[in-house]
Amino acid sequence: MLSPPLSLVAQPPEWVAPGLTRKMAAFLATRPATPCLVVDVDVVEANYHALRAALPEAEVYYAVKANPAPPLVARLVGLGARFDTASLPEIDLCLGLGADPAHISFGNTIKKARDIAAAYERGIRLFAFDAEEELRKIAENAPGARVFCRILTDNAGAEWPLSRKFGCAPTMARDLMRLAADLGLDPVGLSFHVGSQQTDLTQWDHALALVADLFRGLRADGLTPTLVNLGGGLPTRYGRPVPEVDAYGASLRAALERLFDGDVPALIVEPGRGLVGNAGVLESEVVLVSRKDDTEDRRWVYIDAGRFNGLAETEGEAIRYPIVTGRDGDDAGTGPVVLAGPTCDSVDVLYDRADLRLPLALRAGDRLRLLSTGAYTTTYASIGFNGFAPLAAHYV
Amino acid sequence: MLSPPLSLVAQPPEWVAPGLTRKMAAFLATRPATPCLVVDVDVVEANYHALRAALPEAEVYYAVKANPAPPLVARLVGLGARFDTASLPEIDLCLGLGADPAHISFGNTIKKARDIAAAYERGIRLFAFDAEEELRKIAENAPGARVFCRILTDNAGAEWPLSRKFGCAPTMARDLMRLAADLGLDPVGLSFHVGSQQTDLTQWDHALALVADLFRGLRADGLTPTLVNLGGGLPTRYGRPVPEVDAYGASLRAALERLFDGDVPALIVEPGRGLVGNAGVLESEVVLVSRKDDTEDRRWVYIDAGRFNGLAETEGEAIRYPIVTGRDGDDAGTGPVVLAGPTCDSVDVLYDRADLRLPLALRAGDRLRLLSTGAYTTTYASIGFNGFAPLAAHYV
Repeated sequence: MLSPPLSLVAQPPEWVAPGLTRKMAAFLATRPATPCLVVDVDVVEANYHALRAALPEAEVYYAVKANPAPPLVARLVGLGARFDTASLPEIDLCLGLGADPAHISFGNTIKKARDIAAAYERGIRLFAFDAEEELRKIAENAPGARVFCRILTDNAGAEWPLSRKFGCAPTMARDLMRLAADLGLDPVGLSFHVGSQQTDLTQWDHALALVADLFRGLRADGLTPTLVNLGGGLPTRYGRPVPEVDAYGASLRAALERLFDGDVPALIVEPGRGLVGNAGVLESEVVLVSRKDDTEDRRWVYIDAGRFNGLAETEGEAIRYPIVTGRDGDDAGTGPVVLAGPTCDSVDVLYDRADLRLPLALRAGDRLRLLSTGAYTTTYASIGFNGFAPLAAHYV
Repeated sequence: MLSPPLSLVAQPPEWVAPGLTRKMAAFLATRPATPCLVVDVDVVEANYHALRAALPEAEVYYAVKANPAPPLVARLVGLGARFDTASLPEIDLCLGLGADPAHISFGNTIKKARDIAAAYERGIRLFAFDAEEELRKIAENAPGARVFCRILTDNAGAEWPLSRKFGCAPTMARDLMRLAADLGLDPVGLSFHVGSQQTDLTQWDHALALVADLFRGLRADGLTPTLVNLGGGLPTRYGRPVPEVDAYGASLRAALERLFDGDVPALIVEPGRGLVGNAGVLESEVVLVSRKDDTEDRRWVYIDAGRFNGLAETEGEAIRYPIVTGRDGDDAGTGPVVLAGPTCDSVDVLYDRADLRLPLALRAGDRLRLLSTGAYTTTYASIGFNGFAPLAAHYV
């Protein structure tokens, strides 16, 4: 791997307020058109270094889907990060920005045969699977590749919990790992995912206990698994406190040493939100403040960013971004609000049950900021629902 | 208005199977890359004529947000349709395709002041509102314009029900209509929306009774409201039977004559789904068929279209598209499935609780079709979540 060019080595970010660095503030002072996301790539770099320091045993594969912006991916390439990709276009993005194919994982368990072949042709040698049909596609289109099997685990405690969409039962995983070897693949290990924005550190323990047990079974079968992919889930700070990255590292290390009797496997982590979440701030303009009825206290505040142009993760009010307005501290005080987006779609409501309060002085034309919006904002944006453009983003 | 050019006058669509016209079938026979939507614009034209025939009293304002594709909008312009728009870009789209600004409604109740001004400059004279602040923005930026107030109604019976995001209480509407006159605007009438894919015809009755009552109040206040905007909600046929458009027309006409004592106001309808829903078929490729456990009967079928590239309206399993596969009728029969999209996102699951059954012979590489997918598919698509391109669409 090349050393990062000197120009890529950033100064540590300087925070001037919660969720806001000096660079973000300086850019927003130019009054860019709203809605827009401003990402301080130095924060991503600082998060990367902090994670490496907290868990030096693990290779960090950035989950590109969280934010595939080229300036951000390029910075991570320069730092020597690796990449967890969901599709051929994501692989090509990383390769185009200088990533080494040996450092890219095709981590989606749902891949077309021709996409597996194309990835293999580009030098990708690490693939995820969780089903027999997928394994046979990989064996045929990426002969001899390293594969890991994703297992199903619970994910209580996650703010964005996962369905049963990915992974298979551990007993099936054991059969499939043997089949992988029979098909000429290299069954290197197992993966799991505890759910995104996972704040309960014991959830990794539960999953790792399953994995350790399965490792023993695989060894009894004559296989030699060496890799545990810990997935993502590392939380970012929204409103409520979350475990610090060093607590996460210490907790994982203790669990691994206990469960694997000192014979700790090689590790992969796949942070997305954990690397880029707190690196972004989304600025939006208030379009309308209204009441539905003269007798109702609660106002409706409509802003120019909504579920379809940046704030998709407010679905079910799952992710609660901290909000700052230019009228915070106003003498009139605050009052309860429903916060909603600008489209003619009635599901484009951001926070209704969240007991959100905003200044009573807030009015159309004011700007407000949603903090910790670096992950899963630009990418979920629609191509132009209701005629509104996708979320503009600036990388500083 | 110009007469439609002869080339725009289509033959009635010829249905060769439920949800499939001869033109759709012919295009799909060319094996276009998946996922893709194929829309037969002749079906849109037929739907438009049917609605005009069923309710000749009403002006038809197509809800552009349902599908803003230029070939479709251009066809409707040629037919003399009018347009309900959500944003300045939608207005510019319609104008660019030849729509008369006098036939465009700026129907979003949430508008930036500068967008109101820009619309007014383009000749738009009909605006929606539901709040005092919005009314003052319109008065300042579109002086003398015709305005209608949206009122809150229940929308029981809708498959995609609305939140309280739009509209205000009828008592507030009465005050705001008076204020509109005081501000020099022309308060022409009222609007409501019974919820999208509304299959209960009595829901229009309930809302119209509110409107009729409010009309009496407004006349007592010295105003002369003349317009009722019935909104959208007209259902399209997915799986279950829905009322035919002529039943809808007859039901509305009876309610209007009864409630308005024969003095029936001018009418606007704003169909989106009702005009374009059944005009489209979405073809997708099966990427993986798997089980989570050897003991589970239910398979997971993953296809290359999901919540983020076309099938957003499966959120909450609200809209259930009929599905046809090339293996229907296979001797092996069918079995229960969960249907899911291709991304690494666990919410990208289409039908889990829907008791969907698909052929046991189905496997990766097969194609399947989701019917009645002409509305709200292309527009909700993300700009490229997980690296997957927005839904391709072909207008035939």
